[in-house]
Amino acid sequence: MRIETRLTQRLGIRHPIILAPMDPVAGGKLASAVARAGGLGLVGGGYGDAERIEREFRESGNERVGGGFITWSLAKAPHLLGLMLSHKPVAVFLSFGDPRPFAPEIKATGALLLCQIQSRQDCLEAIEAGADVIVAQGAEAGGHGVRRATMTLVPEIADLLAREAPETLLCASGGIADGRGLAAALALGADGVVVGTRFWAAEEAVVHPSMHAAGLAATGDDTIRTTVTDIVREKDWPERYTTRIMRNAFTEQWHGREGELLAQKPAEMARFQTAVAAGDATIAGLVAGEGLGLIDTVEPAEKIISRMVHEAADILKSTARQVR
Amino acid sequence: MRIETRLTQRLGIRHPIILAPMDPVAGGKLASAVARAGGLGLVGGGYGDAERIEREFRESGNERVGGGFITWSLAKAPHLLGLMLSHKPVAVFLSFGDPRPFAPEIKATGALLLCQIQSRQDCLEAIEAGADVIVAQGAEAGGHGVRRATMTLVPEIADLLAREAPETLLCASGGIADGRGLAAALALGADGVVVGTRFWAAEEAVVHPSMHAAGLAATGDDTIRTTVTDIVREKDWPERYTTRIMRNAFTEQWHGREGELLAQKPAEMARFQTAVAAGDATIAGLVAGEGLGLIDTVEPAEKIISRMVHEAADILKSTARQVR
Repeated sequence: MRIETRLTQRLGIRHPIILAPMDPVAGGKLASAVARAGGLGLVGGGYGDAERIEREFRESGNERVGGGFITWSLAKAPHLLGLMLSHKPVAVFLSFGDPRPFAPEIKATGALLLCQIQSRQDCLEAIEAGADVIVAQGAEAGGHGVRRATMTLVPEIADLLAREAPETLLCASGGIADGRGLAAALALGADGVVVGTRFWAAEEAVVHPSMHAAGLAATGDDTIRTTVTDIVREKDWPERYTTRIMRNAFTEQWHGREGELLAQKPAEMARFQTAVAAGDATIAGLVAGEGLGLIDTVEPAEKIISRMVHEAADILKSTARQVR
Repeated sequence: MRIETRLTQRLGIRHPIILAPMDPVAGGKLASAVARAGGLGLVGGGYGDAERIEREFRESGNERVGGGFITWSLAKAPHLLGLMLSHKPVAVFLSFGDPRPFAPEIKATGALLLCQIQSRQDCLEAIEAGADVIVAQGAEAGGHGVRRATMTLVPEIADLLAREAPETLLCASGGIADGRGLAAALALGADGVVVGTRFWAAEEAVVHPSMHAAGLAATGDDTIRTTVTDIVREKDWPERYTTRIMRNAFTEQWHGREGELLAQKPAEMARFQTAVAAGDATIAGLVAGEGLGLIDTVEPAEKIISRMVHEAADILKSTARQVR
């Protein structure tokens, strides 16, 4: 069973499913598992750690994977792009910042350029950069994002691309955790999907077991967009971005009291780091989207993809039969 | 061309499309136009104005329409429910509050009970109330709402209903403005959709022409969830609800400075009311969702429904062909 779209054709992959390059969750092991299962696996380059990029691309073995960067962070250490490109990634995924300065170097290697965007203006910049694939990310996504919803952003960007760059492909990201989300994304006009939270709950993901347990127990109502974890991680994100994480004792204590948190930062940073190391989900940030409410097992990536595709295919066929 | 679902069967309507009971936008004229076109038309009962309810139900003529209430507001004037029921609505739509106190009176008349919910907890209360249809509303919707996205809330509530109340139908609301949204909602597990913003741009809607013009010019990035309009309208909404409206000079001035707005309320109330009367979209609240970016014409409701159904049907058939 397959779902064939412009994305599967252009990328030469079996299923229109891309692993979000979550750092540190999406390492070489997860990226290569997704690739083996027929999707596109992306190693999370995160804030740019050369040693990590080297290690995780090695870990991905001979699978055809790509990698991702946080664009504003890459701008502070642009040499990391060359390092990633030396591993011959099939694609480079840029999100959260202006992709235009990095596009020529990426495209010169033949790697596909995937640009994740959160607004129409972002999309226009990505088109100018020559993006091969636009990834329209809704705020229901885990991790960093802005405020639009997948349900409206995807068709609006589809219309924009139809007018401005009809050869550019479109993927949906944010809230897609099962075959229903995949089928819905295709209906909205996407050529495929970028999946984060559902792969966060993959066996191959770099996630502390107690964080997995806490996430599986959560519902979609249990997440929040906030900046409190960026404060204690000293990540200097541009103001438009917040992070979606699971609510916990730490967010209950500090969300909405960011000024006070800043005043107590050293102590809270230490407490946070200790919790991260221990996998203490009451304090550490469990980065996941609203899709948490659709997930109740940790499984191999291959099984996640297979079920997602089969479920989506069944839905596409059964909803078509509702037409009289 | 039709799309047949459990909703069309249960309600005896031609298309699985329900008009959101927007007050004052959805009067008898719009509700009856939607009903004539094969959907379910709902008159907005709003904050509960007996004269308005009488007038708009008369205006709807002999069409089979229903009506909606803001539940917490109805609780302050519960006699209005009997008034609406005296017009023999085919359905009563309750949103924003606990439906349980009102459910027996509604169901005793044979009217269907539609409960719009914004969280799992809301859904459990609606099931207890005996809702015939649960409407899962995402925060991309125009007007009041909470924070979940349609993309994740709908499948999560579908799973909850499958376990707890499999006979209860499910509709999606929030961000559904064209056939793509309708097709996506069905893929997510909904039996139909509730449409607000797209019908706000219907010819039969009670909307000032200059507000229509401003809304058509806006994109989906131009809306915001805020409380500033409730402050100057003196609507005492429970804290969990905010309103999505188009950004304008008024929201730029006051959003994030609500304390100062409260201090200057009398003058700002007067300014706001004058702007509402004049249709001044730079000050008055233009209540619409992110779907604004998908709308570029004001048309008769019949044409909106017809295009939405045809587009969705085409999508359902063409996406099914992507399955190999």
